[in-house]
Amino acid sequence: MEKELGLLDKIVSLSKRRGFIYQGSEIYGGLGGTWDYGPLGVTLKNNIKNFWWKKFVDDREDMYGVDAAIIMNPAVWVSSGHVNTFTDPLVECVKCKRRFRADHISDGKPARPGDTGRSGGCPECGGKVGDPRQFNMMFKTSVGPVDDTSSVSYLRPETAGGIFTNFKNVVDTFHPKMPFGIAQIGKAFRNEITPKDFIFRSREFEQMEIEYFIKGEGWEAHFEDWRKSVLEFADEIGLDKDKVSELNVAKEDLAHYSKKTIDFEFEFPFGKKELYGLAYRTDHDLKSHMNGSGTDLTYFEESTGERFLPHVIEPSLGVDRTVLAILTSAYTEDTLGEGTRVFLKLKPKIAPVKAAVFPLMKNKPELVDKAREIYKSLKTKIPQVMFDDNGNVGKRYRRQDEIGTPFCITVDFQTLEDNTVTLRDRDSGKQERILATELNDLILNKIT
Amino acid sequence: MEKELGLLDKIVSLSKRRGFIYQGSEIYGGLGGTWDYGPLGVTLKNNIKNFWWKKFVDDREDMYGVDAAIIMNPAVWVSSGHVNTFTDPLVECVKCKRRFRADHISDGKPARPGDTGRSGGCPECGGKVGDPRQFNMMFKTSVGPVDDTSSVSYLRPETAGGIFTNFKNVVDTFHPKMPFGIAQIGKAFRNEITPKDFIFRSREFEQMEIEYFIKGEGWEAHFEDWRKSVLEFADEIGLDKDKVSELNVAKEDLAHYSKKTIDFEFEFPFGKKELYGLAYRTDHDLKSHMNGSGTDLTYFEESTGERFLPHVIEPSLGVDRTVLAILTSAYTEDTLGEGTRVFLKLKPKIAPVKAAVFPLMKNKPELVDKAREIYKSLKTKIPQVMFDDNGNVGKRYRRQDEIGTPFCITVDFQTLEDNTVTLRDRDSGKQERILATELNDLILNKIT
Repeated sequence: MEKELGLLDKIVSLSKRRGFIYQGSEIYGGLGGTWDYGPLGVTLKNNIKNFWWKKFVDDREDMYGVDAAIIMNPAVWVSSGHVNTFTDPLVECVKCKRRFRADHISDGKPARPGDTGRSGGCPECGGKVGDPRQFNMMFKTSVGPVDDTSSVSYLRPETAGGIFTNFKNVVDTFHPKMPFGIAQIGKAFRNEITPKDFIFRSREFEQMEIEYFIKGEGWEAHFEDWRKSVLEFADEIGLDKDKVSELNVAKEDLAHYSKKTIDFEFEFPFGKKELYGLAYRTDHDLKSHMNGSGTDLTYFEESTGERFLPHVIEPSLGVDRTVLAILTSAYTEDTLGEGTRVFLKLKPKIAPVKAAVFPLMKNKPELVDKAREIYKSLKTKIPQVMFDDNGNVGKRYRRQDEIGTPFCITVDFQTLEDNTVTLRDRDSGKQERILATELNDLILNKIT
Repeated sequence: MEKELGLLDKIVSLSKRRGFIYQGSEIYGGLGGTWDYGPLGVTLKNNIKNFWWKKFVDDREDMYGVDAAIIMNPAVWVSSGHVNTFTDPLVECVKCKRRFRADHISDGKPARPGDTGRSGGCPECGGKVGDPRQFNMMFKTSVGPVDDTSSVSYLRPETAGGIFTNFKNVVDTFHPKMPFGIAQIGKAFRNEITPKDFIFRSREFEQMEIEYFIKGEGWEAHFEDWRKSVLEFADEIGLDKDKVSELNVAKEDLAHYSKKTIDFEFEFPFGKKELYGLAYRTDHDLKSHMNGSGTDLTYFEESTGERFLPHVIEPSLGVDRTVLAILTSAYTEDTLGEGTRVFLKLKPKIAPVKAAVFPLMKNKPELVDKAREIYKSLKTKIPQVMFDDNGNVGKRYRRQDEIGTPFCITVDFQTLEDNTVTLRDRDSGKQERILATELNDLILNKIT
């Protein structure tokens, strides 16, 4: 009897089989904690990013986008605290010299104070492990021809640094009125010791971050607005509402500068974990960068004649975690047709393929021609449409279900007579005949 | 008398002043060879990338997109030859220990064979410089907790590596017929010794690359198709045709595996330099990765029953160089209005702002309300529209001209009576009165 796969295994397997996500550098045996997006994954990811950008940048008048370099002046990460405190405690096995996260060793305490070994054993060889040492999680590199400490720089561990360093540029160029935000989508890198859970915890990932600059007083109302906006976004892209919850980070667990932080958690296949974060960070960041850079980052408000250092509310969203949460929400099995059917219940506007057009049979040129004509006409308005004539119609349905295509359109002999086609709905499997000329509006309606 | 600025200085200055491109980590004194895109720069860049993706991926049936990790298994770069040969010769000054590119020292030859010094002097202190040593231009980093040679990895020096390593994944998942292509947009990194010429030669840049897989025979026709496509793309995004030229790389200068390479050059403000590349690289890449990875990368063609290693045609386009070429093509000065007018003659579909809506006076609520009503109705269909009521109309025109906004729409008292507005064309400065209800179609027509 085959062992039944867990939900995560099923998602990983479908992602690879259907071209959403592959292991990074796979033909070379991979590279831990890196993942490559395949043709459908790129499109799914772009649909998410574009929707976020439209909602939070294009459709608002108080938002400014930036795209900053990944390698920044290392002083940025001194100011932000990452150089000194962005660390994980590691222990080394006295015997085999392998290193592990201290909190992954069964017993975190030294056998006795000052003892060189610990009662918790090495997970690899069972040997004793030494005292924990701090290991910085930023990826280091050297900029310029000389490979010494003076040239050390880091891959950004979060996109926020590129926002704060451009605060003054945006203010000087656009003179935005308070409150306003700066938004960025881009890669960030963390040298995780134990990357795991597919794309949930990887070493290279993508963030969608906003720093929303406000006057300190009245932050509660802005925080509440952003809390609602984050939940609204999660709903609009199709996250299962029952799987999303909010965790009010307790006062004693807050970073010293934050007055309020909410972790939006999601019920992933491996448990409830942080999906998004929302934090009121006071004026801590601008103050740190003002001190660190020696550049005045205060803001002059013309309407009141006041000069002050803005406070900030930070909604921070991971692209890859969003992809995984969407796949988790969308993955469905039912018994439509023969045996178990697997399908992705993706929201049409997020689905990488909006509609697939089939000729009923591929060896009838008149059907193929007509199907291609319909396909081409749809594609001018809806780029994410595909043509599929591989295998029989049943197989095509199964394939399209697995990639979450909301609509399948079949061209048959009746089409040649009255220009109607079969439109099949992914979720119900129901088919109806409609005029080919109505397809365009019908689909556009569902995806916008 | 002020010294007249050269064209590059003018472009750099406008880019900063208007929020296209800022120096990377600017408030920290910068970081050489890195640049941050500001609000208008991000949008300009996204417009270029989206247009490329639509033209070369979405609108074609033979293309597959990927988005691979930036940090790859280092063996990828051994196979590609980058570990061994992607080097610049550097010389070190015997006296001050600074390093320079050997070809930047006045006399590249040693004073005498075996001599420790060279007759060319150090540009900084005049001291003698030593023999050239090879310096690898890839950024190195360490992956995982142990900082030793076994964990060394590189930031990708080109996006192509992530395409070749996914060749098998795409074939296995989608069974594409020959010829087909894999496309990717993403960051790449080169530790340039002397980054220069604004965003032309930077350490962090973005590429739009395609590997187009073909059977070896008949490559000439595919090459010619891609040559035309690249030129067509350059024209469609608004590059000045007179500034684009083709350089057929001479046989003796070709890489040993390439049978033909064209450099598309552009007349930048600092001279004619490579903009894009197009190369027929035979089966060199897949062969190297097949050997290096030990994974079979041959392709089985069902229609002929043949199994072979595909050849490849590689059109390689830099995003940042495209931005600079567009700004160079678009930057225009004329004498419209008072004194010299500066404007960017951007193609409407590439311009970061398609139209700006003004109330004639900002202190007349009825004009402001009407202007906002028109602005909002336009924005639902055309996200890149802005509202501007700062300063007088003349100043707004100047500002919009500088950022290349093709259309300015002014709402005045007559608008309240007959719903007509003034539509002003950027390039000619001509104004006409049209019905507000006609704006949407008119602008959409120009930007698609």
